[in-house]
Amino acid sequence: MRDVGIIGIGQTKVGEHWDKSLQQLAMEAIAAALNDAGLERADALYVGNMLSGKVSGQEHIAALIADFSGLRGIEAVKVEAAESSGAAALRVGYMAVASGLVDTVVVCGVEKMTDAVSSATASAALALAVDSDYEALHGLSLAALNALLMRRYMHEYGVKREDFSSFTVNAHRNAAGNPYAMFPRPVSTEVFLKASMIADPVSLMDSAPLADGAAAIILCPGDKARGLTTDAVRIVASAVATDSLAIHDRRDPLLLEGAYLSAQRAYQQAGVGSVDIDLFEVHDAFTITAALSLEACGFAQRGQGVHLAQEGEIALDGRIPICTMGGLKARGNPVGATGVYQIVELVEQLRGQSGVNQVKGARLGMAQSIGGTGGTVITHILEAP
Amino acid sequence: MRDVGIIGIGQTKVGEHWDKSLQQLAMEAIAAALNDAGLERADALYVGNMLSGKVSGQEHIAALIADFSGLRGIEAVKVEAAESSGAAALRVGYMAVASGLVDTVVVCGVEKMTDAVSSATASAALALAVDSDYEALHGLSLAALNALLMRRYMHEYGVKREDFSSFTVNAHRNAAGNPYAMFPRPVSTEVFLKASMIADPVSLMDSAPLADGAAAIILCPGDKARGLTTDAVRIVASAVATDSLAIHDRRDPLLLEGAYLSAQRAYQQAGVGSVDIDLFEVHDAFTITAALSLEACGFAQRGQGVHLAQEGEIALDGRIPICTMGGLKARGNPVGATGVYQIVELVEQLRGQSGVNQVKGARLGMAQSIGGTGGTVITHILEAP
Repeated sequence: MRDVGIIGIGQTKVGEHWDKSLQQLAMEAIAAALNDAGLERADALYVGNMLSGKVSGQEHIAALIADFSGLRGIEAVKVEAAESSGAAALRVGYMAVASGLVDTVVVCGVEKMTDAVSSATASAALALAVDSDYEALHGLSLAALNALLMRRYMHEYGVKREDFSSFTVNAHRNAAGNPYAMFPRPVSTEVFLKASMIADPVSLMDSAPLADGAAAIILCPGDKARGLTTDAVRIVASAVATDSLAIHDRRDPLLLEGAYLSAQRAYQQAGVGSVDIDLFEVHDAFTITAALSLEACGFAQRGQGVHLAQEGEIALDGRIPICTMGGLKARGNPVGATGVYQIVELVEQLRGQSGVNQVKGARLGMAQSIGGTGGTVITHILEAP
Repeated sequence: MRDVGIIGIGQTKVGEHWDKSLQQLAMEAIAAALNDAGLERADALYVGNMLSGKVSGQEHIAALIADFSGLRGIEAVKVEAAESSGAAALRVGYMAVASGLVDTVVVCGVEKMTDAVSSATASAALALAVDSDYEALHGLSLAALNALLMRRYMHEYGVKREDFSSFTVNAHRNAAGNPYAMFPRPVSTEVFLKASMIADPVSLMDSAPLADGAAAIILCPGDKARGLTTDAVRIVASAVATDSLAIHDRRDPLLLEGAYLSAQRAYQQAGVGSVDIDLFEVHDAFTITAALSLEACGFAQRGQGVHLAQEGEIALDGRIPICTMGGLKARGNPVGATGVYQIVELVEQLRGQSGVNQVKGARLGMAQSIGGTGGTVITHILEAP
């Protein structure tokens, strides 16, 4: 099995790109990543995307994007795992290079949510990630399901709604230093408290905004990477785990077993524990998701994820910095692209290129991407050059 | 890089399964394949599917199917490459095992076309495989695009519509020996000639029927395969190539460059030429597709694909048997599952288990799966135990 390095990164600004198509966004990110790697071509393209068929009226986008990016002819397929599609595409790219079958790989995550004709259409599209027969058909959207989880968490652990504000404040503070973020400005606890309710107790300020965006990374074998660049970032773990789609089928709704399994597998591959991780790009689609993920990955005891945030341990200078460039909440959440944005941001941190948001001495970074309410969870651990 | 063997196969009957859901069909095929391999579990599941989001109202199906099949927790992602999604999932499974990262893999192709509310919905869904901006939006369905190709072929090479009938007659003759086929009965040239026109010159008898179905295979490393079974089939080539989605962007509409590239890469990997292939599961979504694929892969000179069929060389005892269990035309075409059905049928042939349809002395079998009108083409070559 070959070692795999990341030798190039690219991203578009996250936001509402009314003037650009899905394939244009992808092409921009891919061109930037190839340029960063000093390459003109690659051997394969794995695209992470969830909703092109439903929202953009186009499947078969991997071949389309390859052609649009000047890569006609190369191997290209799309990988889908709901909101963790981008991370799933990285997993496939990692296997391709590790196997020895493919040398240079582009992994691109892309989503064009503004192709949805209305926010109701966008919500319905996202609900394709939850169990259609037993959740979505009964009106349970992603926000509604997370509201049930948050309410249960508050009940079980005696936590108040406002206690979740630390996640939002942290994410927005970090986004202010990220030129690619959708909402690059701080918000206060007061703003959090006054936000409109979406599905009680989940407010607008608990929820990551839907957005358009594309991010790309270039992979190649470790030995080749060392010849091409001095700042290749090594992938030391790549792990996918699943759980039931429906929350009611789980043994304990507040334990994300997929996140637990995925993190354990990743720690085992890398030969490390949670204590060795210097920063963590968490899947903060909702504040409750961030809390549950931190707990499932061993960064906090159960019921303590919210306190970790309140105590400032998730800040850039805290014990385990999260959402270092704004996270899903403030960088924005272009669904199938998000898992690749997390990796791009980790690579910047591990290269020491994160400017005012730089986590000092970052050596091991972890990213976790979650599909649905935890049906798929994908964890990657990267090591600094 | 590890050798990869196929140690189990399973399939449902192809047809209209009004009483079964997508996940039920997948579960049946997976259970059959695991049983055939003598295994109870696997380490990962790669699902090939094109239209679950559009037609069945459910994305995130890999985790759902894993759970439904008693495999909750394992790695699971969906792979999409239009009609070649099943073959794309096999490509990913092959890389997973070859890399050494995963030991036992289930590859499952599944599609539930009867979830479409009407045949118009089904046609619109399939049109997601062609270029949305430049083809589909202007009313060009898959059938319409293939009609343009067929008309052009007839014009260029002086071929008549009825000359294509040999493909259909061959497919249906072979389907009669396949208990899993949707239309297991012979049809005559007269039936072909009287068939209703869909998009002149493409008639109902030139077109593969849409259907529901699921097929699954179990992969493991070659050395492990030899310990588990005496009839493991080896994957000796696995190649993906792409082309523009839109036909008008290609240099020559009658040359499937993706098919050419994909076949050349596969021949190179296997160290063989077209002359070494004993049988070929061709992607006969339309009769014109079969002709163009045979030519691109080197089984016939350009313009001679139809004559190859007319001369009987595609029959079970011909020079290059195709559609040996009925092909897309008569076994049926459950879109994202079709690429895996082809592999299941090849494995049966290479094990010598194809009954009255057995190709004598089959040692090397090739399968080619095509997305859209040739935007993605995936070729696998398998070797007998």
